[in-house]
Amino acid sequence: MDELVTIPDFERSWRERTDRAIWEYVAGGAGTHRTIDDNAAAYDRIWLLPRGVRTSTGEPDTSVTLLGRTVSSPVVLAPTSPQRLVHPDAELATARAARARDVLSIVSTDTHHAFPEIAAEAPGLSWFQLYGYRSREDVAATVELAERGGATALVVTVDASYSARRISTRRAGFRLPDDVDYGTLRALGVLDGAAPASGRLDRLPVTWDDLAWIRSLTTLPVLVKGVLRPEDALRCVELGAEGVIVSNHGGRQLDGALPSLVALDRIARVLPRGRTLLVDGGVRSGVDVVKALALGAHAVCVGRPYLWGLGLNGQKGVEQVLDVFDVEVRDALRQLGVSSVSELGGQFVARAPGFLPDESLR
Amino acid sequence: MDELVTIPDFERSWRERTDRAIWEYVAGGAGTHRTIDDNAAAYDRIWLLPRGVRTSTGEPDTSVTLLGRTVSSPVVLAPTSPQRLVHPDAELATARAARARDVLSIVSTDTHHAFPEIAAEAPGLSWFQLYGYRSREDVAATVELAERGGATALVVTVDASYSARRISTRRAGFRLPDDVDYGTLRALGVLDGAAPASGRLDRLPVTWDDLAWIRSLTTLPVLVKGVLRPEDALRCVELGAEGVIVSNHGGRQLDGALPSLVALDRIARVLPRGRTLLVDGGVRSGVDVVKALALGAHAVCVGRPYLWGLGLNGQKGVEQVLDVFDVEVRDALRQLGVSSVSELGGQFVARAPGFLPDESLR
Amino acid sequence: MDELVTIPDFERSWRERTDRAIWEYVAGGAGTHRTIDDNAAAYDRIWLLPRGVRTSTGEPDTSVTLLGRTVSSPVVLAPTSPQRLVHPDAELATARAARARDVLSIVSTDTHHAFPEIAAEAPGLSWFQLYGYRSREDVAATVELAERGGATALVVTVDASYSARRISTRRAGFRLPDDVDYGTLRALGVLDGAAPASGRLDRLPVTWDDLAWIRSLTTLPVLVKGVLRPEDALRCVELGAEGVIVSNHGGRQLDGALPSLVALDRIARVLPRGRTLLVDGGVRSGVDVVKALALGAHAVCVGRPYLWGLGLNGQKGVEQVLDVFDVEVRDALRQLGVSSVSELGGQFVARAPGFLPDESLR
Amino acid sequence: MDELVTIPDFERSWRERTDRAIWEYVAGGAGTHRTIDDNAAAYDRIWLLPRGVRTSTGEPDTSVTLLGRTVSSPVVLAPTSPQRLVHPDAELATARAARARDVLSIVSTDTHHAFPEIAAEAPGLSWFQLYGYRSREDVAATVELAERGGATALVVTVDASYSARRISTRRAGFRLPDDVDYGTLRALGVLDGAAPASGRLDRLPVTWDDLAWIRSLTTLPVLVKGVLRPEDALRCVELGAEGVIVSNHGGRQLDGALPSLVALDRIARVLPRGRTLLVDGGVRSGVDVVKALALGAHAVCVGRPYLWGLGLNGQKGVEQVLDVFDVEVRDALRQLGVSSVSELGGQFVARAPGFLPDESLR
Repeated sequence: MDELVTIPDFERSWRERTDRAIWEYVAGGAGTHRTIDDNAAAYDRIWLLPRGVRTSTGEPDTSVTLLGRTVSSPVVLAPTSPQRLVHPDAELATARAARARDVLSIVSTDTHHAFPEIAAEAPGLSWFQLYGYRSREDVAATVELAERGGATALVVTVDASYSARRISTRRAGFRLPDDVDYGTLRALGVLDGAAPASGRLDRLPVTWDDLAWIRSLTTLPVLVKGVLRPEDALRCVELGAEGVIVSNHGGRQLDGALPSLVALDRIARVLPRGRTLLVDGGVRSGVDVVKALALGAHAVCVGRPYLWGLGLNGQKGVEQVLDVFDVEVRDALRQLGVSSVSELGGQFVARAPGFLPDESLR
Repeated sequence: MDELVTIPDFERSWRERTDRAIWEYVAGGAGTHRTIDDNAAAYDRIWLLPRGVRTSTGEPDTSVTLLGRTVSSPVVLAPTSPQRLVHPDAELATARAARARDVLSIVSTDTHHAFPEIAAEAPGLSWFQLYGYRSREDVAATVELAERGGATALVVTVDASYSARRISTRRAGFRLPDDVDYGTLRALGVLDGAAPASGRLDRLPVTWDDLAWIRSLTTLPVLVKGVLRPEDALRCVELGAEGVIVSNHGGRQLDGALPSLVALDRIARVLPRGRTLLVDGGVRSGVDVVKALALGAHAVCVGRPYLWGLGLNGQKGVEQVLDVFDVEVRDALRQLGVSSVSELGGQFVARAPGFLPDESLR
Repeated sequence: MDELVTIPDFERSWRERTDRAIWEYVAGGAGTHRTIDDNAAAYDRIWLLPRGVRTSTGEPDTSVTLLGRTVSSPVVLAPTSPQRLVHPDAELATARAARARDVLSIVSTDTHHAFPEIAAEAPGLSWFQLYGYRSREDVAATVELAERGGATALVVTVDASYSARRISTRRAGFRLPDDVDYGTLRALGVLDGAAPASGRLDRLPVTWDDLAWIRSLTTLPVLVKGVLRPEDALRCVELGAEGVIVSNHGGRQLDGALPSLVALDRIARVLPRGRTLLVDGGVRSGVDVVKALALGAHAVCVGRPYLWGLGLNGQKGVEQVLDVFDVEVRDALRQLGVSSVSELGGQFVARAPGFLPDESLR
Repeated sequence: MDELVTIPDFERSWRERTDRAIWEYVAGGAGTHRTIDDNAAAYDRIWLLPRGVRTSTGEPDTSVTLLGRTVSSPVVLAPTSPQRLVHPDAELATARAARARDVLSIVSTDTHHAFPEIAAEAPGLSWFQLYGYRSREDVAATVELAERGGATALVVTVDASYSARRISTRRAGFRLPDDVDYGTLRALGVLDGAAPASGRLDRLPVTWDDLAWIRSLTTLPVLVKGVLRPEDALRCVELGAEGVIVSNHGGRQLDGALPSLVALDRIARVLPRGRTLLVDGGVRSGVDVVKALALGAHAVCVGRPYLWGLGLNGQKGVEQVLDVFDVEVRDALRQLGVSSVSELGGQFVARAPGFLPDESLR
């Protein structure tokens, strides 16, 4: 086994050790995987412009403050499910790693364990990711559960209301194993059977009215996840959201969607200062993290990378993944001549040929 | 055999089951196949911009109204011939599938069966595609036959008046089988021998005068197929055509022609509202259909995809292809946050780097 | 053996039949062959915009009038040497083919046979390509020989005054065979030995003064071959040249030179009307010929393609190559909806992404 | 063994003869090697525009005057270490080759031999490259040693203050051999042990204050190496540096950094006349050298190429590498129609599509 010194090492290593159908479920996405490829390729189309001579020295500060909480890293654990597929400890392991490394974790509605159990493992570091199931009453109950369970923010996912055409997953013969449960849904009493797959329950698509109503339900800060267009980001914050997570759901929903980093670049130009801006999709190194931050993100969510670590090694594997990102972000900051992530900005990047849509060049 | 869940599945599956020369005849095109490749690649250079938060919910409406007829889908069956090559039921199977799925079908002049027989299988759904053979008298007789046979529109193909250099087809040793007939030409009495190949009869090239004259022959709506330049599209509608089908004949005539999707983008900017705009060439998924519609097409013609289905499974195979497009168009609309195809427009697309000609960027 | 239906067929077929070192000498060029590749790739970055509906019909007229002579084709045989390498009949076969097909041929200074013998085989169709050897006196004698021999134009090559770094040719172990002679040089008495290689005699680099002086030597029309910059093209015609041949010597001199088609596009914008503009380098099909003409060339020179034909089949092989170009140019004109090459122009092309230098886009 | 006629020949040849871990140490760089690849690719995205007709003739003059010293070539030997890895004679061989070929050599702080010994082999041709170790006192002592040793310029490297993530080197199992010494550091008394690796001693990051202070330490001209941004280059010369070396440390420090040739293009536009501008990274031929000079560099540093020569053949190998560059630069100048390197400038280049960052095109 290769040393686990880069993020792709975790991918390769876990791939060798796990069932192919499960691997495909995690790795795959919609249609031809064009969006998955484009998400990653967009990072390769950003060049970094280091300061050679520096303005200060010393160990770089990687801490960021997100929605009032200062954490050690701009890397946030994206909501994923079902984590039980890749490790029996599932979200508990992930939460413990988040606590051990002092990073934020966004916990899905579709977790194996119920949210309060998970959040108890990472107090103050757990944001709750909301899917709406069945009815507004059920949504309100879900938000209440999240608040009671200790969520410090609500992340409303708007880009995955409908199941997607995951051709590669289907061809690999993926079926949800019997021992995967939906603890939070069970606690809410919205499950119809014993251990239903997420897909069997219809999610409520989120309209602007729904979003305003959800905003009114809670005093928690609200982020909207799954935004790709500047006008939508603006409308989210006008409706009271604290910010947005720019995302195409890791290429899992619509094949051909705009790469999330390109979308970030456009949204960062218009989002009012003081609002929170995150991005996910295609982040595979500390250099990628730094590129996203330089383009205007306040933090970056990663999904598949920590699932690979979780699959390989449970809590410890997630920590190893976070440690690689930490080493790499620190290295990139030092090489850039930057002493803290807050210093990052547009002066440290150039958009390589082929990054901007053609319209932007006219 | 793989499940037939995507359009390329039909291609692969039929390829394994059919004669190589026939496969090449259907798959191939002019010269080096550069236009075939470019047609498809252009779709990959359009990014979709989904609404995450949506303005409405519910099952998307895929119906479109074309030249006064409302059909279930924006996918139109392009004129192809000879369909007898790929299945004994030829155009009858295709027409029955069009009726079963409530889609429009454009029927070639060069069909094995005579047009009236074909149109009888898909009443109200059959447009007649006109090639001119031998003389204006013969053209007038053809239009009359189309009208009598129940055509609801006339599609004048202008880009295939001369046989093309189909090198790959030639190298594969393709020869038209003896049992292919030309029913419509036979009914018109323009065949010189027993079962002549289309290429043995010279087609009349279509001039602007011819077009005006054809327009005057009939009260049917007229579409001009094979238009790539904005000025030509405008002149067509000035001469009384109801619209145009943007096409380079699927890359079968001129190697190096402008990709049809790029041409569509330019023509959509100038065509007067109310005129009908279709495109063909390189459409291989529902996502592709949605991209063309967002760039301004009212519908999209597909040719090779339904021939693959026809070859595999006759009428049922064509229906299966239409069903895949239907599932994929619906999925793409849902993922985009759009409730009907009529909502699609420029706000849902970005032209990825490398889509626009260099002149457009200056 | 494949049918010889496209130009690359001749390349493949001759390659299989000839000595590798000779093949490399013909095929190869300077350094890494980047300019060879770029020359060809530039043609792939031009899209053609056919008229579907046409303004006229009938067999297209491919004839062109160059420096007062009307010939059957816009394809001109570029100066190449030593043709003896590939066929014993050498330039005599090429001249006979030019006469048989009524095309112009540019005859090198470095031919095996003496110019008068060659020109006698293609009266009125032979332009003389001038390299200067040893002294102005020798140059004057060469021009006089060309005039006496029946040259109808003088082509002054300015981009090959120094031998180049042809790495692939060198690695292939190429050595000039003993039976290659230099008939024209021998007639002029400038040979130092029995059968010296071209490279053993130093060529005179051509300065602006030289060019003016050469212009003054003769009443023949003068074309300057090897021009890539608009300002140089303008200066050539100011000094009295009838026109220029845009060329990087087929990628044989400077690795990394501007592709000749890109250079043509720039020069065509500034050259005064009435001046003659040709281009060579990378032309491998009739579609390529049409692209160059639409970008502003009056004719296109081909070199390697007819050497492949010559190598395969002597005079007949050159005719076969010219016939393929003829068929392909006619086909491309018909598919474009154009009735003569003189109609070609900028309205028939779009520069695909990646054709124009970045500066041109700003 | 292939003839050594191009620079990559040395790479291939040495690769076959040396230990893989050592090869990887020399060849490799940070992370995924994207910057290494981009550095080289940038040269392929510059097109040369030769003068066909020339303004003068004769053997081109390749000499350049850098910081007052006229040398035979615009190729400068970049600082590299430890050269002992590839040849026992290490920097002594390199210095002797520099003297034999009359080129400048930049000598690292981290040499096996002490600087005075090395500089004695190449009097007047040795610039000293400064890393700061431990303290300002040590830096001052180092500068004094350089002056005493005969350095004619001080090159302050600012982009390698921290060790980098060299994944490929690590995976190859590279370890510094025991017989590698640090002669200059030993002479300065800053070594902690017997034969410590460079990495074990922390380097001082260079701040603007440090740079001003270093400038004040010496009357030698100072160049700052590792500059990629125009504003940083300007600030360097404002602080009294004679110029800058545009560099991303050959892709060895920050994966994803701007290609150095792209950076050169931007810096050359703003650097005041009279200041010295060099570039390194990705130079693999005389054509590359000419491209960099035409974009504004006064000279070009090469590192890996001469290490390959050194590894193959000691002093003679370095001379062979310099000879190939010399032949190639002369050839490129002749083919360009240029009689001296000082004539080179922007009129001889076009930026091929994909050279300029997207921002530059808007």
